[in-house]
Amino acid sequence: MNYNQLVNIIKERKSFLCVGLDTDPAKIPAGMSILEFNKAIIDATRPYCVAYKPNIAFYECLGKEGWDILEETVEYIGKDHFTIADGKRGDIGNTSNYYAKTFFETYGFDSVTVAPYMGKDSVEPFLQHPGKWAIVLALTSNPGSMDFQMVQAGEERVFEKVLRTVSSWGSVENTMFVVGATRAEMLADIRKIIPQHFLLVPGVGAQGGSLEEVVKYGMTTDCGLLVNASRSILYASSGADFAMAAANEAKTMQQQMAMFL
Amino acid sequence: MNYNQLVNIIKERKSFLCVGLDTDPAKIPAGMSILEFNKAIIDATRPYCVAYKPNIAFYECLGKEGWDILEETVEYIGKDHFTIADGKRGDIGNTSNYYAKTFFETYGFDSVTVAPYMGKDSVEPFLQHPGKWAIVLALTSNPGSMDFQMVQAGEERVFEKVLRTVSSWGSVENTMFVVGATRAEMLADIRKIIPQHFLLVPGVGAQGGSLEEVVKYGMTTDCGLLVNASRSILYASSGADFAMAAANEAKTMQQQMAMFL
Repeated sequence: MNYNQLVNIIKERKSFLCVGLDTDPAKIPAGMSILEFNKAIIDATRPYCVAYKPNIAFYECLGKEGWDILEETVEYIGKDHFTIADGKRGDIGNTSNYYAKTFFETYGFDSVTVAPYMGKDSVEPFLQHPGKWAIVLALTSNPGSMDFQMVQAGEERVFEKVLRTVSSWGSVENTMFVVGATRAEMLADIRKIIPQHFLLVPGVGAQGGSLEEVVKYGMTTDCGLLVNASRSILYASSGADFAMAAANEAKTMQQQMAMFL
Repeated sequence: MNYNQLVNIIKERKSFLCVGLDTDPAKIPAGMSILEFNKAIIDATRPYCVAYKPNIAFYECLGKEGWDILEETVEYIGKDHFTIADGKRGDIGNTSNYYAKTFFETYGFDSVTVAPYMGKDSVEPFLQHPGKWAIVLALTSNPGSMDFQMVQAGEERVFEKVLRTVSSWGSVENTMFVVGATRAEMLADIRKIIPQHFLLVPGVGAQGGSLEEVVKYGMTTDCGLLVNASRSILYASSGADFAMAAANEAKTMQQQMAMFL
C-alpha cells in the first residue's frame, strides 16, 4: 500500500487507528483458537481502523504453527488495511534482504518495524520494495527507552540523531518512525526534524498517552499518524462478548479520531 | 550450556571457532537440500569448532519449511556445541519474553543475539533462563556501525555506553557481546570496560579482520572469544568437494587458534 492509498483510507474511514494483534493464548476465551480469535477481532474492528499490526514474537514462539496462523491472519485482513509486521528486525545488508523478503514477499505485509542500531546497510534493504515500508524505531514507549535512545550525543539525543539520519535514507513514501505516546509533548520537537513522515504511535490508552496530545503535537496535513492500540481492544472483555467489546472500544477511538480529521 | 561447560569445550577442542550457518540456497550444490547441506557442513566441521550460529533470516524467509529445517539443524548439532540463534531480536519486556521462549524453549538454542536499542526491559527477559545467554550487539562489523554505534555521547561512544550499561544487567555467565573484528585494535579499549565477558567476533577472514590481532587485544584467561566464520567455511568450494573444503578451512582456523590457547 503506497502513501496516497494510506492517506485515502484514513480520510474515507475517518480513522488513523491501528489494531495490534498481540494475541496471547492465555487471555483469549477458553476453547478458542488464536486464528479464530484474530478473525473475530478483525471482523469486529474492520470498519474502525486502517491498519493491523501482528506482533511477530507472539506467533514465532508457537513454532511453525504460529507462522501458519500469521499467514492466514494476514490473508484474512486483506488489502483494505495497511499491515505491519512488528518484528523489530535489522541485520547486515545481506541478512536484512532476507528479512525484507520474509515479510514483504513470503507473508505479503506492507511494512516491517526495524531496529536502527546497525545503521544504513541494515535499513536500506527494507526501502527498496515499491509500496512497502520500513517503520524504524526512534523513541519507544517502554522504560528502557531511557537507556540509549535518550542519551545526549553532542547537540542532540540519540533518537533525534536516528530521526535525522534515517529520514535521509528514504522518503516519506517508504519510511515511518515509531514514536511512543507517553512523551506526546516531545512530538513537537520531533516534527521539527521530520515534518511530514508518518509516525506509528504506541502507548495511547493502556500506557497512559493522550490521543488529544498526540494529535496536537504530531498531526500533519496528511494526518501522518497511525495510533496503535493492542490490549485495550483485544481484551476489552474477557467473556464471550469479547468481539463486541473490541468493536465498541475501536469505535470509541475512531469517533475521537474523526473529530480531529 | 553454562560458562564452565563452554570454557571446557574450548580447552578440550583447542578451538574457539563458531561456524555461521548462513545457508543460501543459491550457493549450495544443485539438487541438495538446505538440511542436507547443513548436516554435511556440521559433520565436516564438528571436531574443529565449539559453536554453530544459524542466521535466522535465512530460515525465516522460507516460511514454515525454514523453521522445520532450523529445528532439525539444531537437533543435529546436539549438545556438544554451543548454539547461537542469530536473530538480533529485542522488544518491550513482555514481547522479548516471547522471543526468549521461542529460541530457548521452542528451538532449544543456548543463546540469542539481541539488539540493545530498546534498553533494559528489552534485554532482561533473555537473562532469566539458567544456562542460556543474551549476546548483545555492541560494535558490529558492517559499514552502518558508523551511523549510531560510533557516535560520541559525552565522554564515551554509544557502543561503549552499551557495553558499560548492559554488562551491569547480567553477569559473565549469561551475557556476551558482539564486537566486529574489523576493528581489532579497539578490543583493547573494550576490554577495559568488560574485562571478562565472552565476545562473539564476526568479520575474521572474509571481512578482513586478523585472528592474531583479535587474540592479542581480546583474549582473556578463560579465552573469552568466539570467532565466527560463515561464508569462508560454507562456500570454501562450490563443487562436490564442498564438505571436505569446509573441513580443511575449519581445521586451518582451529590449528591457528590452538597456538593461542
